[in-house]
Amino acid sequence: MTTAEALDYASVFVFGLTGGLAASRAQLDPVGFLFLAVITAVGGGTARDVILDRQPVFWVGEPANILVACAAGLICFVWAPRLESRRRALDWLDAVALASAVGAGITAARWEGAGVIVTVLMGVMTGCLGGILRDVVCNEQPMVLRRGELYVTAAAAGAAAGAATMELGGGIGPASILCGLVAFGLRAGSLRFGWRLPEYRSRPPRS
Amino acid sequence: MTTAEALDYASVFVFGLTGGLAASRAQLDPVGFLFLAVITAVGGGTARDVILDRQPVFWVGEPANILVACAAGLICFVWAPRLESRRRALDWLDAVALASAVGAGITAARWEGAGVIVTVLMGVMTGCLGGILRDVVCNEQPMVLRRGELYVTAAAAGAAAGAATMELGGGIGPASILCGLVAFGLRAGSLRFGWRLPEYRSRPPRS
Amino acid sequence: MTTAEALDYASVFVFGLTGGLAASRAQLDPVGFLFLAVITAVGGGTARDVILDRQPVFWVGEPANILVACAAGLICFVWAPRLESRRRALDWLDAVALASAVGAGITAARWEGAGVIVTVLMGVMTGCLGGILRDVVCNEQPMVLRRGELYVTAAAAGAAAGAATMELGGGIGPASILCGLVAFGLRAGSLRFGWRLPEYRSRPPRS
Repeated sequence: MTTAEALDYASVFVFGLTGGLAASRAQLDPVGFLFLAVITAVGGGTARDVILDRQPVFWVGEPANILVACAAGLICFVWAPRLESRRRALDWLDAVALASAVGAGITAARWEGAGVIVTVLMGVMTGCLGGILRDVVCNEQPMVLRRGELYVTAAAAGAAAGAATMELGGGIGPASILCGLVAFGLRAGSLRFGWRLPEYRSRPPRS
Repeated sequence: MTTAEALDYASVFVFGLTGGLAASRAQLDPVGFLFLAVITAVGGGTARDVILDRQPVFWVGEPANILVACAAGLICFVWAPRLESRRRALDWLDAVALASAVGAGITAARWEGAGVIVTVLMGVMTGCLGGILRDVVCNEQPMVLRRGELYVTAAAAGAAAGAATMELGGGIGPASILCGLVAFGLRAGSLRFGWRLPEYRSRPPRS
Repeated sequence: MTTAEALDYASVFVFGLTGGLAASRAQLDPVGFLFLAVITAVGGGTARDVILDRQPVFWVGEPANILVACAAGLICFVWAPRLESRRRALDWLDAVALASAVGAGITAARWEGAGVIVTVLMGVMTGCLGGILRDVVCNEQPMVLRRGELYVTAAAAGAAAGAATMELGGGIGPASILCGLVAFGLRAGSLRFGWRLPEYRSRPPRS
């Protein structure tokens, strides 16, 4: 297994954990945990593969991804309180998973010959869509709408940095690494220092 | 028309009825009834066909499915009160439709050469996704999150039984029948005897 | 650029504006504006292309669509109050965009050899799905469930008129124009004169 493959499975696992924790907040039965773990873990990559017509969809080709997501869901069913109390640690793992998933997204898009714009979108989609599906199904406030945090923004900035590197002739390897570093860096800054973008205010205060 | 085809249309019709009843709870106009009937009836199979790259999508190939779903929607517009008062009967019809749809899902996946894991997922998706879409669009509590009932669980158990049968060399026919019986049996047990899985509790009572 | 292409981009732009206004109601940061503008603008056409297996998906083939949607999102971030105060004007622009998108949807379906039923559904999906995704992600009442307005109905009637014209031997050009006129006409009647369909009432008053 290459480093990239190991990172892919690790992302699926961590996203699965966030799905399982959402299931614990909704107090579901074990099948509900599996369900949310799976859609959170593979939702983004599935949309990417369907839109780019990559056949087979990644988890149809490698069903071990589903098993990894299910394992994460069951772990949450058994140990969610212990995981919740480590929420902070999980946020950091999620930041790594996000960075890795965005990198995987732009790499996949580039393999399909996508240009800069589509590559950036595919990076964001791979990193963020699973979490959005989880939040919509659970009727929680979708991540992308949570104010005061960089999440989609971190994904977008990382994807843009990676896509620009590839466009300027850098290889896919260096581009994914740069992408991951930028996405992780911004997300980490948001978690650690509260970095954020200005929000929309309908009436800015007069100076 | 074979028995399998007749069952497929019957499932589309019954799922369409549940969509129409959701429209009646939201007090929509007739087009809203058609809309919800159609997405409930064909949503799961559409996702299955898109992910497995089965072309054409089943209702693009056989648009009569859409007409059947629309008929169910219109029937609800006219007779929803009478149907609501037979809610219990409809739950039993829905159990049959679920069992039939899960069987159709695993059969389709097997035809595409899917392995056990993907086959199970496709069975669950075909049986449950339409209802989840209906609930998300209507802003009702999604079925999969409703506690104290076996629904996704019944679908998953049936799909697993069918997939295992096929893996062990059983034909597609016997496998679908076993799948349907298991899914219907669990759903029926949940409706009739209140069978359920243990739910997640953050603090189990000390003994 | 042909008239049809110009109309397509104009629809993407106007749908993007409605996405951006939803972001302003949720008081998001700029990336949230881009996100909602993009899914509103391209969601419907994406589902159409994926279901009909049209490759590449329209915005993968012409990424300028994404830039147009992003521009609409940023304009909302800067000028949303001014746009909100012109809400009425925007509703009229949206009616034009709807009519144009439904026409584009039935044209695309016809090119793929779809029959009447699938053509109508693709028209409705292209016109309405982006807005439904926007509303679901923002947790607003989905458009299709808003009572007392013709929206999906206008799309469906226009699509049906266009599909019937094509079925009766009319060319794609005249059919799209008729489709657009019917859709716009009904939506305009709803905006200007309050046209609506009867809603479902569980207990009609006795006469």
